[in-house]
Amino acid sequence: MKALEEKIVREGRILPGNILKVGSFLNQQLDVDFLMEMGAEVARLYQGEKITKILTIEASGIAIATAFAAHLHVPVVFAKKHHSANQSDDVYHATVTSFTHGNTYEAIVAKEYLHAGDRVLLVDDFLATGEALRGLIAITKAANADLVGCAIAIEKGFQRGGDSLRAQGIRVESLAIIDAMSVENGIAYRRS
Amino acid sequence: MKALEEKIVREGRILPGNILKVGSFLNQQLDVDFLMEMGAEVARLYQGEKITKILTIEASGIAIATAFAAHLHVPVVFAKKHHSANQSDDVYHATVTSFTHGNTYEAIVAKEYLHAGDRVLLVDDFLATGEALRGLIAITKAANADLVGCAIAIEKGFQRGGDSLRAQGIRVESLAIIDAMSVENGIAYRRS
Repeated sequence: MKALEEKIVREGRILPGNILKVGSFLNQQLDVDFLMEMGAEVARLYQGEKITKILTIEASGIAIATAFAAHLHVPVVFAKKHHSANQSDDVYHATVTSFTHGNTYEAIVAKEYLHAGDRVLLVDDFLATGEALRGLIAITKAANADLVGCAIAIEKGFQRGGDSLRAQGIRVESLAIIDAMSVENGIAYRRS
Repeated sequence: MKALEEKIVREGRILPGNILKVGSFLNQQLDVDFLMEMGAEVARLYQGEKITKILTIEASGIAIATAFAAHLHVPVVFAKKHHSANQSDDVYHATVTSFTHGNTYEAIVAKEYLHAGDRVLLVDDFLATGEALRGLIAITKAANADLVGCAIAIEKGFQRGGDSLRAQGIRVESLAIIDAMSVENGIAYRRS
C-alpha cells in the first residue's frame, strides 16, 4: 500500500537494533483516518472470504483491528497477555516468546468468543519473527475455527516470520513489507 | 443512548462487588459496528466543538477511542500505564490509583503528541470513581491543552466520579448512566 510506505518514510524513525518507531500514527498516537484507509484496503484484499471474526492481541493490535473490523463489519476478539499460565477450562491459551521484548507470556482467549465455524482473520500492527501470530494460530486451531489469513500493517520481511508462515500455506497480507532497513540507508521495500 | 442501555441489559452480566461484565461487546470481544454507532452519537454530541485530539488510556480505552475518532476525524493519543515513575523530560505523567484493581500506576504521554492549543476529548469505556479521567485531565492541563469534555460508554453513576467532575464544570457525556445495579434487581438507568 503505497500511502503506508510513504507515511513510514515520512514519519517513521529507524533506531539501532532493527527498531522502527511509528509512534506518530500506529502506536502511541493513532492516525485513525489513516487506519481506516488501511482497513478499506484489507477489506478489498479479503473480499468474498466471508470472515466472521478478527482475532488480535492486546494492546498494540487493538486499534488497527478495530479500524479493519469497521470495514469488514465483524467483531474483534483480542487475546489478553498473562505472565502466568492460566489453566482454566474456559479459555484457549498459547505460550508466546517475544524476541522483541525478551519475555514469554500466555495469550488467552475466553472460549465463549471463538467457535468452530468462525472464519478468522488474524490482525497485528507488526510482523517480525511471527511468534505472536503463531500463538493466535494455535488458539484458532484449538477452537476448531477456520484460519482465513493474516492482515498486518508493517512486516519486517528481513526477520522472516511472514515468509515462514507463507511457506506453511497461510495467507499473509502485509500492507508494507520492509526487506532491509538501516539508520544509514533507510528503508527498502519488497517489490513483488 | 437507548441502544446501549438495551445492549447492556441483554448482554451484560452483573457480578457481586458492583462489577458489570460487558465482555461480549466492549471488552474482550468488541462489537465494532456497535462501537461505530456509539461514535456517531459522540460526534453528534460534540458537534461544533472543534476537537483536535482524543486522549484515552491503554488498553481498554483504545478500541472505543478509535471508533469515536473515526467519526470525529481526529487522532487518538493513548496514555501508557507504567508501574514505576518515569521522570523523563519528554513525557507528561500523572499518578492514578485504581480502586477497581487496587493498584497505583503512572499514566504517561509523550510530549510530542499533545500540545498547547489542542482541543482534547477524553474517552474511556467505563467511568466509576473517575481516577483515570483525573489523571488524563492533569496531563491535558500540563500540556496547556484545552479540555473540551469527556465521552464515556458506561458510567457507574452510583460511584459518583462523573458527578464530581460535572460539579467542577467539566462536560461529561456518558452514553449510559447506571444509577443502581444489583444481581437481584438488575440495572436502573439515570433519567434526566
